[in-house]
Amino acid sequence: MKTILVLGAGRSSSALITYLLQQAERHAWHVIVGDLSIDAARDRVGQHAHGEAIYFTIEDEVQSRERIAVADCVISLLPAFLHPTVAKICLDLGKHLLTASYVSEDMKKLHEQAKAKDLLFLNECGLDPGIDHMSAMQLLDHIKEKGGKLLTFESYTGGLIAPETDPANPWRYKFTWNARNVVMAGHGTAKFLENGQFKYVPYQQLFTRTTPVQVPGYGAYEGYANRDSLQYIDTYGLRDIKTMVRGTLRNEGYCSAWNVLVQLGCCDESYELEKVSEMTHRSFIESYVSSGTDSLEARICHKLGLSEHGEEMKRLIWSGFFSNEKIGLSKATPALVVEHILSKRWKLQPEDKDMIVMWHRFTYQDGKQVKEVQASLVAKGDDAIYTAMAKTVGLPLAIAARHLLLGNLKERGVCLPITKTLYEPILLELASLGIRMQEQETILS
Amino acid sequence: MKTILVLGAGRSSSALITYLLQQAERHAWHVIVGDLSIDAARDRVGQHAHGEAIYFTIEDEVQSRERIAVADCVISLLPAFLHPTVAKICLDLGKHLLTASYVSEDMKKLHEQAKAKDLLFLNECGLDPGIDHMSAMQLLDHIKEKGGKLLTFESYTGGLIAPETDPANPWRYKFTWNARNVVMAGHGTAKFLENGQFKYVPYQQLFTRTTPVQVPGYGAYEGYANRDSLQYIDTYGLRDIKTMVRGTLRNEGYCSAWNVLVQLGCCDESYELEKVSEMTHRSFIESYVSSGTDSLEARICHKLGLSEHGEEMKRLIWSGFFSNEKIGLSKATPALVVEHILSKRWKLQPEDKDMIVMWHRFTYQDGKQVKEVQASLVAKGDDAIYTAMAKTVGLPLAIAARHLLLGNLKERGVCLPITKTLYEPILLELASLGIRMQEQETILS
Repeated sequence: MKTILVLGAGRSSSALITYLLQQAERHAWHVIVGDLSIDAARDRVGQHAHGEAIYFTIEDEVQSRERIAVADCVISLLPAFLHPTVAKICLDLGKHLLTASYVSEDMKKLHEQAKAKDLLFLNECGLDPGIDHMSAMQLLDHIKEKGGKLLTFESYTGGLIAPETDPANPWRYKFTWNARNVVMAGHGTAKFLENGQFKYVPYQQLFTRTTPVQVPGYGAYEGYANRDSLQYIDTYGLRDIKTMVRGTLRNEGYCSAWNVLVQLGCCDESYELEKVSEMTHRSFIESYVSSGTDSLEARICHKLGLSEHGEEMKRLIWSGFFSNEKIGLSKATPALVVEHILSKRWKLQPEDKDMIVMWHRFTYQDGKQVKEVQASLVAKGDDAIYTAMAKTVGLPLAIAARHLLLGNLKERGVCLPITKTLYEPILLELASLGIRMQEQETILS
Repeated sequence: MKTILVLGAGRSSSALITYLLQQAERHAWHVIVGDLSIDAARDRVGQHAHGEAIYFTIEDEVQSRERIAVADCVISLLPAFLHPTVAKICLDLGKHLLTASYVSEDMKKLHEQAKAKDLLFLNECGLDPGIDHMSAMQLLDHIKEKGGKLLTFESYTGGLIAPETDPANPWRYKFTWNARNVVMAGHGTAKFLENGQFKYVPYQQLFTRTTPVQVPGYGAYEGYANRDSLQYIDTYGLRDIKTMVRGTLRNEGYCSAWNVLVQLGCCDESYELEKVSEMTHRSFIESYVSSGTDSLEARICHKLGLSEHGEEMKRLIWSGFFSNEKIGLSKATPALVVEHILSKRWKLQPEDKDMIVMWHRFTYQDGKQVKEVQASLVAKGDDAIYTAMAKTVGLPLAIAARHLLLGNLKERGVCLPITKTLYEPILLELASLGIRMQEQETILS
């Protein structure tokens, strides 16, 4: 009997665990779900005959080794910085490992050792990174096979809310994954290639340099660049490319409103605020603006060149940033206060549906013609548990695990799902589950 | 015979060492100057009978202990992060230590031990921090003695150039201390108190929120807030104060021009640039601006709301940021490129005179009246060696060392020069050397 150990029973685990339990029934496998909260693990497993919920903490090395020792394959949904710890135990005990996180330098170093032990350490096999890589590589391989030469690569993904959810919410956004990461998004410098020129975009510019995106049937979005797109020139094998950008997608208007918080400087977790317990939402914002006789709103608008009745202020007011409500924390960094204020309105309600939007735009030389492919994927959640985020992050991992246990995957070592043998079976099954790209090609010249 | 060991023979050491050598002659002391460059140490000591130049590196612990063992008092001009290492050896060997750097948490921890061994570890005894503390405390103690209650505290210091130096330089600035620190200035968040409200100013706002400063006889300056002014509320004993800001002074127009570099994001040392060896000054700047058909200058001005013929662009053009000159580095962070480009025009020439400007503005309740004191200090350098910076950083240390060796200083433990017994003799002697504040008091209401 094969055993799969899933580490983490949080927000992104629902669809993954449901899928694995179904497969477990079919193949007589055993699925163990471990979490710091055994109740969370029990919620996911339910009364399933092939499932087991356990307490798991990576901090207890002895117990972690015991837990991992009984598995054939480990799927880690733990925070990314913990993956190397999990990976070292997996290497030691000879277990395969799957994650949906960016491969770290520490992880990369394990490649030869994992290979020597006939193990697959598959990373970046979720949504973004994950489905974005797989769908892009499928398109790129197709272009290459017919003799085309790629000129530009742009790819954006966002975890949003469905049009019918919370219609009054002007951001068209709620927290569907790690809220802290949403608040801290864009820190550091984005690096990409544009028309042959390297571009570096610092945090203070990032949300003002957006790319407009139209998804047929869904409307207007905007994308901002992710941290380091340059490394994917090598990963995707695109040596002579002129434009290479990977980024995050938001609904139109999100970025210029978010930019107000960025410019004020309140998405920062490098220091603790003074006297948070006395602060209101409004006095928190006041501490990021010069004193003056005009209203706080007027001073912000004057400083940043905004209209008091404009789209940016509308969003910030809706989020309650100017209310006299007490924050309700006793000790906090500014970023935590922002997260806390936003959570009051951005928490996913039980019946809310989230929505994933992914969009690629590639241009390529095809003989004497330059062609453009636009491809988009839209996935909706069922509710606040079976979110589109949980499906698109979890199902690629689950499908990869199934194929691995069935002996269909031959890759070994530290891998990304960018080779046909990996992405093809996963994309095929995702399509059968309704998660697929729609493509459209036009001739540019 | 008493021995003083000076660690570091760099830019800030000239006046300090000259003063100590003069005193050494008078009191039959011995002055040892140690540096990584023994030539630099020899340049400072010359053929002086009471001086000795040695090779010194803190990385060689055995040798460092031998060198420190022969001293009665150590003056460290090493980079601030090395002071705790020096301090631990001094503690162990029972030697006094003087520095011009901000006292670190590691240094603070040595207080009780230093006290128990009857040692003075005096920190922040240079210019800023140093003379700023001393002159402020003298004024504050004076106000307190006559029963006044301090309402607001503002203090700014800048290391500039004299009016007669490089008249064509629109920045009115050159590198007179650590160039890297000038380029990286303002990173992190400035924290201060303004009219009873805590204020947090992020890097992206800092150079747009300046305070105008007029120094009688010298003209118009502007100040921006330093990193953490809040801690000085306790240090200065100003519990109920309403405004507390310490900052950096620049000539009018400097900050809005510097802000262009800040907004572009090129003062960053967190990553290496791609293909620096192929870059020109102009293509470096291009990598921080969106592509477009307009000129680079026009795109920057459009983005940041500037005039192509305005004061900001005038400064940047003068510095050569738009020239097609090769940068001339093969590997660099953006901050290093900025430093390198600026150094081509901002290097102090042999006959250049620098100028220190310090300015305090305090208001206080004096019975039924509210009074304002403005105090300013201006010090000019002689040339590129005996700079105002070297004098104002080095002489307070030198004077403190003299009094210490003469047995006049009774403070022990980790101290700042904020008590009368410390600041009074130092300020008195600085005044005799022409370094003194000019005060002016007005009744506000």
